[in-house]
Amino acid sequence: MEGIWYKETPPGRWFIIKIPPGETLGARLVEFARAEGVTQAAIVSGIGSVKDIRFRGIKTGAKVPITIPRIHRHDVEGPLELLGLTGNIFPNERGEIDCHLHITGGLSSGEVIGGHLYEAAVFATCEIVLVEFRAEGIERYLSKSGGVPTVYIRQE
Amino acid sequence: MEGIWYKETPPGRWFIIKIPPGETLGARLVEFARAEGVTQAAIVSGIGSVKDIRFRGIKTGAKVPITIPRIHRHDVEGPLELLGLTGNIFPNERGEIDCHLHITGGLSSGEVIGGHLYEAAVFATCEIVLVEFRAEGIERYLSKSGGVPTVYIRQE
Amino acid sequence: MEGIWYKETPPGRWFIIKIPPGETLGARLVEFARAEGVTQAAIVSGIGSVKDIRFRGIKTGAKVPITIPRIHRHDVEGPLELLGLTGNIFPNERGEIDCHLHITGGLSSGEVIGGHLYEAAVFATCEIVLVEFRAEGIERYLSKSGGVPTVYIRQE
Repeated sequence: MEGIWYKETPPGRWFIIKIPPGETLGARLVEFARAEGVTQAAIVSGIGSVKDIRFRGIKTGAKVPITIPRIHRHDVEGPLELLGLTGNIFPNERGEIDCHLHITGGLSSGEVIGGHLYEAAVFATCEIVLVEFRAEGIERYLSKSGGVPTVYIRQE
Repeated sequence: MEGIWYKETPPGRWFIIKIPPGETLGARLVEFARAEGVTQAAIVSGIGSVKDIRFRGIKTGAKVPITIPRIHRHDVEGPLELLGLTGNIFPNERGEIDCHLHITGGLSSGEVIGGHLYEAAVFATCEIVLVEFRAEGIERYLSKSGGVPTVYIRQE
Repeated sequence: MEGIWYKETPPGRWFIIKIPPGETLGARLVEFARAEGVTQAAIVSGIGSVKDIRFRGIKTGAKVPITIPRIHRHDVEGPLELLGLTGNIFPNERGEIDCHLHITGGLSSGEVIGGHLYEAAVFATCEIVLVEFRAEGIERYLSKSGGVPTVYIRQE
């Protein structure tokens, strides 16, 4: 089909995950995935609170590809209520587990901030539900046009 | 049960979907659903980046039904990090596939904006996980009291 | 594994839920769970609109444990587009159904607010997809270090 790629794939294992206070969210998720052999997955739910959040936004008016001068890095001490943790795991071009996460967090004022997550530490708790996939022909590699690692789906 | 309607339904097929740069998000999802015969579904995960986002908020203090004078349309060039794509697919009163989407996106400043999505274009990538349902007795039609197309669940 | 607890668990029943205008979101979800005997679950998707939203943020610079003086309560009349409803259900230390929800909502201006949800009423509609779990050895109790009820996973 033009303009869209997709693959039907039954879900694999489901995991309920708890990351305790002080631990880093992204790094621990990657360690978990490595230990369990999870190479493809999506985050179904993520709730808790976070601190020391490093993330990026894309500069207004920027064009693709996304490059360093076209992004804006943020470093927020927080703590923030973790309102949304969206993301997926797919192997990168070296076959390594690659965890792509976007975060939304609530400030004391009730305002919400967020972006592409570099890393965050857990504040009081972080509770994640994750579903595994084992699809053939899906990988992530650098998109020359987009400038960022991107999922590619081989269609039969 | 009073004050809540629900239906137990086993999940059907799962799809991993990639919409490439420049394509419109909502229109492509509807085309996908039509091609695969997906009439009921929920979005489990949506990550990537978007541009040219058109969405609405409801005016503060407005009452139901939601009418044109009670909403506020926004047109944001972006690009935005796609932080959340929430939504479901159910057939409307004409039996057509109807895709209801809400979006949250991160600005360069780290602030987050969003609302009921009219349409957005993909910036660098858009990666979606979707789960299908095949429940009996669920449809979407215009709620006279609410003013918007709404899911109705027939309970036995 | 150090720094992370997790449990593999197959999903149980799936539910499509509709909460109609004027009903309270959290209270109705708990009633539903009680009626259906759902003691463990995650929200997969939540879309619609809400009003009279009461939620909290954590004060900037606060340390754990989370205590009353360290949080900031918000009371927003709205209505808001419901952009994200994240959460899980696990039994608390008294064996009761405990529903932990975080909310993000879109203002008329397009700005997004949110936090740990106390309660909200449905405005035009609220459509939720929920997946049940039946894992052994998962419960929620007050974390002394965190100050809030937290999921604990017993690992074999």
